[in-house]
Amino acid sequence: MEVGFLGLGIMGKAMSMNLLRHGFKVTVWNRTLSKCDELVEHGASIGETPAAVIKKCKYTIAMLSDPSAALSVVFDKDGVLEQIGNGKGYVDMSTVDADTSSKISEAIKSKGGSFLEAPVSGSKKPAEDGQLVILAAGDKALYDEVVPAFDVLGKKSFHLGEVGNGAKMKLVVNMIMGSMMNAFSEGLTLAGRSGLNPSTLLDVLDLGAIANPMFKMKGPSMLKNNYSPAFPLKHQQKDMRLALALGDENAVPMPIAAAANEAFKKARSMGLGDLDFSAVHETLKKPDHSS
Amino acid sequence: MEVGFLGLGIMGKAMSMNLLRHGFKVTVWNRTLSKCDELVEHGASIGETPAAVIKKCKYTIAMLSDPSAALSVVFDKDGVLEQIGNGKGYVDMSTVDADTSSKISEAIKSKGGSFLEAPVSGSKKPAEDGQLVILAAGDKALYDEVVPAFDVLGKKSFHLGEVGNGAKMKLVVNMIMGSMMNAFSEGLTLAGRSGLNPSTLLDVLDLGAIANPMFKMKGPSMLKNNYSPAFPLKHQQKDMRLALALGDENAVPMPIAAAANEAFKKARSMGLGDLDFSAVHETLKKPDHSS
Amino acid sequence: MEVGFLGLGIMGKAMSMNLLRHGFKVTVWNRTLSKCDELVEHGASIGETPAAVIKKCKYTIAMLSDPSAALSVVFDKDGVLEQIGNGKGYVDMSTVDADTSSKISEAIKSKGGSFLEAPVSGSKKPAEDGQLVILAAGDKALYDEVVPAFDVLGKKSFHLGEVGNGAKMKLVVNMIMGSMMNAFSEGLTLAGRSGLNPSTLLDVLDLGAIANPMFKMKGPSMLKNNYSPAFPLKHQQKDMRLALALGDENAVPMPIAAAANEAFKKARSMGLGDLDFSAVHETLKKPDHSS
Amino acid sequence: MEVGFLGLGIMGKAMSMNLLRHGFKVTVWNRTLSKCDELVEHGASIGETPAAVIKKCKYTIAMLSDPSAALSVVFDKDGVLEQIGNGKGYVDMSTVDADTSSKISEAIKSKGGSFLEAPVSGSKKPAEDGQLVILAAGDKALYDEVVPAFDVLGKKSFHLGEVGNGAKMKLVVNMIMGSMMNAFSEGLTLAGRSGLNPSTLLDVLDLGAIANPMFKMKGPSMLKNNYSPAFPLKHQQKDMRLALALGDENAVPMPIAAAANEAFKKARSMGLGDLDFSAVHETLKKPDHSS
Repeated sequence: MEVGFLGLGIMGKAMSMNLLRHGFKVTVWNRTLSKCDELVEHGASIGETPAAVIKKCKYTIAMLSDPSAALSVVFDKDGVLEQIGNGKGYVDMSTVDADTSSKISEAIKSKGGSFLEAPVSGSKKPAEDGQLVILAAGDKALYDEVVPAFDVLGKKSFHLGEVGNGAKMKLVVNMIMGSMMNAFSEGLTLAGRSGLNPSTLLDVLDLGAIANPMFKMKGPSMLKNNYSPAFPLKHQQKDMRLALALGDENAVPMPIAAAANEAFKKARSMGLGDLDFSAVHETLKKPDHSS
Repeated sequence: MEVGFLGLGIMGKAMSMNLLRHGFKVTVWNRTLSKCDELVEHGASIGETPAAVIKKCKYTIAMLSDPSAALSVVFDKDGVLEQIGNGKGYVDMSTVDADTSSKISEAIKSKGGSFLEAPVSGSKKPAEDGQLVILAAGDKALYDEVVPAFDVLGKKSFHLGEVGNGAKMKLVVNMIMGSMMNAFSEGLTLAGRSGLNPSTLLDVLDLGAIANPMFKMKGPSMLKNNYSPAFPLKHQQKDMRLALALGDENAVPMPIAAAANEAFKKARSMGLGDLDFSAVHETLKKPDHSS
Repeated sequence: MEVGFLGLGIMGKAMSMNLLRHGFKVTVWNRTLSKCDELVEHGASIGETPAAVIKKCKYTIAMLSDPSAALSVVFDKDGVLEQIGNGKGYVDMSTVDADTSSKISEAIKSKGGSFLEAPVSGSKKPAEDGQLVILAAGDKALYDEVVPAFDVLGKKSFHLGEVGNGAKMKLVVNMIMGSMMNAFSEGLTLAGRSGLNPSTLLDVLDLGAIANPMFKMKGPSMLKNNYSPAFPLKHQQKDMRLALALGDENAVPMPIAAAANEAFKKARSMGLGDLDFSAVHETLKKPDHSS
Repeated sequence: MEVGFLGLGIMGKAMSMNLLRHGFKVTVWNRTLSKCDELVEHGASIGETPAAVIKKCKYTIAMLSDPSAALSVVFDKDGVLEQIGNGKGYVDMSTVDADTSSKISEAIKSKGGSFLEAPVSGSKKPAEDGQLVILAAGDKALYDEVVPAFDVLGKKSFHLGEVGNGAKMKLVVNMIMGSMMNAFSEGLTLAGRSGLNPSTLLDVLDLGAIANPMFKMKGPSMLKNNYSPAFPLKHQQKDMRLALALGDENAVPMPIAAAANEAFKKARSMGLGDLDFSAVHETLKKPDHSS
């Protein structure tokens, strides 16, 4: 199977490498073309522009850093729109807001192309291991056609209905995650200040009904005040805000998410926005950080 | 090894049965003595009173329903205090508050006995399977002596230091659990009201970084409005309150736990206190429960 | 002094009547022209269209129901833009969001006109009594020129700087008000359920440091479950949301406002959005409303 | 009318002075007797012990600093209990918890005496001006007899039913006050960070439906980061906690109070417990306090 791949950041590089490894023919493009070199060594072709990739490939996957990059690749000169059309499919796996996704979807469809949004759950490691969870929404026929690629990129893919549902599902998951991180952080702080060993709390948690990979992975570094960013706090807070907005539209009261959002905002106001979202832990500490 | 066992409720029965199965000689007592019959069939002896059990056994374990039962078994006529003394150990595995635990501890020690509090994490099924997590605190020598029993009853036991720390650790864990349940419930509700399939949310969650047994076990029944009590909501709310009180003593702000506590109180005010704590889900629904 | 007045709803009618009473020459326009009749009886002239009013008057005040009406009066055919220009001032006293206000401001200024946003604090009664509080922002020279009109309409007017600040100030005030209403409602409920007479609580409050007109006015009707809309709950909730968004932009944690917003959302989900914002009181009651 | 007065702290001194000024014959006692001197200059007699005061006077009022002082004056050697009896009334105006109040009430009544709890709303200035609000509860006949003293001490007194209701009423009022302070503080912070002048916000607030003495009095000093303690933050937080506990007993969800309580706890953890409760304002600031 032949696919185009636009965007070779941390995620995109790992994903296109996986496709190559599993025998896909991949034509890659990246804004900084030199990033394509390693892929070419492993057998990829290069497309000079997004339009060139679309022209060459029946299916093209994009994995871009943010909404503006996602829009630019489609709408700018030499962009996707110039070559998309009947019989061609475009799969945007970037994490973007619903508006961006709709705009891209409508533009692609107006040219006769078919479109899937397919944001993923999972970051660098799962991308490398082909263990992403893929939250696709949009054209079902296109979904069925690109499932072989999804099978390589992820451990599981879902088709969630109309465009927008992929982004929504991701927001819901991230909202739960953000609230959980706060609950966890409160527990670690409470343990420490009331004379328990927070490391033992980690052991106890890991044996019980609420054991989960996030606690296991983040707990030890949080106890060392190590917040190297895997998922930056400011992005987590943005997702909380968007999830709360979604709840507002649908009149869903979400008091825990709202409280968690304020804690993330507090962390932002403390200058922690670029650290890992687990840095919300700092909001609970005494000023001297002696807790 | 010979042990006494006081209290044959759901938990106590499963636990003493496990001890018998693993070759322990067990002398049981229960307020309603007929509940001892099944144990006797499997080889247990009967003690007529708590005092009689203590007299006979070097080590006695208690698993009682609440603080008043725990106190009564120790302080009432024919109670533990009448026979406890030098060389005898008493292990209270009931879930009680710190005050109750201290009172019992002091009384036992003033008679020369040694004492462990050892509340557990896990309910009926883990009790039957010997998969409890045991949060012991108090006399370390006694802990070392009864580890063989703990190894049969649980998958892991901890010695957490001074009496009171077992109860505190359990509170911290339950607080995190209560907040997580609310975050989960908000996510399920948000998914449903914004046009996503909540069952698919369960699948997505189960594949990601926050996958945990509680979501997996409770999610499907919550979606069916089925809240058969495994852990009654009013007990969860009580634990949230006690955890918040512990935080208050130690000046730990816990905004998420506080919000979760209010949601559980709302559920109580709706008459849901005797249902499972997952019934907090109902607080987010529209009045006609059509969500 | 001669002024135009666009919009004769509850507020606009009372305000233009006040201007007439104080000797202003007023030219009125309303989408349903028949609403102008009463004003004409008191001496007003009629403008057939917004454009006609602008053409005739050096200063025109608008008091419209919502952002879409405010935009339509300016941008539609026969709208304000067709006649605004050098030497003419437009004062929009409607409550609109910052975006709407900026759009109108820019359009007016691009035609050479001058612009003030001037949302008010106060509803029907203060409007009738000329006791509004006027939160003006924008062209300072225009502000100075229309102060005589503001003096008639309100007990106090402020010039708050650049366009947008009037709307922001109103949001901040309404946010505090919304949180206070929730605090008040919790107090009334707590009093009633813990055996105190909530009416006595109203008397006690009215004698102390937190006595305020809102408690005095709303308290007695809240105790009778009477929520005739003076300020609809859905509008209050919208203002909470916008204030929270303003806080988000500026990294201001606002945990109380966030909790209050969720309570208003809960009320909306109970179908209370069109009642007075004091109906948030209902969110705290037991399901049978017997509290 | 002759009354005893126990406790000459800031409040007690002002109150007994008022009684003297209005022609009451007052016998005073204070733990540090030298504090009685000024009162004696104004015509007071001295009692050597609480018991001596009770022996001499038909009615005795106490105004003590905290529950332990209130208990000590009653139960210690030479305390109230030694002389209280039939025909004698004891009025405790200290702010104490319900338990303390009940203990004192029962002891007094068991000796044949009659008892009122009568905590007050208002601090130093209202005490001096005889403008307290008196929240009495307990023996109604005693209340009727001491009304002349209450009329001198306060602008209004209430009889709220059984002992405990005075304390409860005060908690409810203080809970509303604490939540309001947080709402106010969020508003001031939001105004400042979003480019508005917080002083202007104070002016706007003072003209509207939520104008109240607390905002007027505390606002200007909060803007100067001046938190000289009128009502210490740690006491406000204690009252929030007790109000929340009262709500818990009665299954009243109070999400705003709960969020406010956590903010006060955050302030305590920042070492602000001894400052005025308005210091909760600091919890919203950026670390460099540059907001």
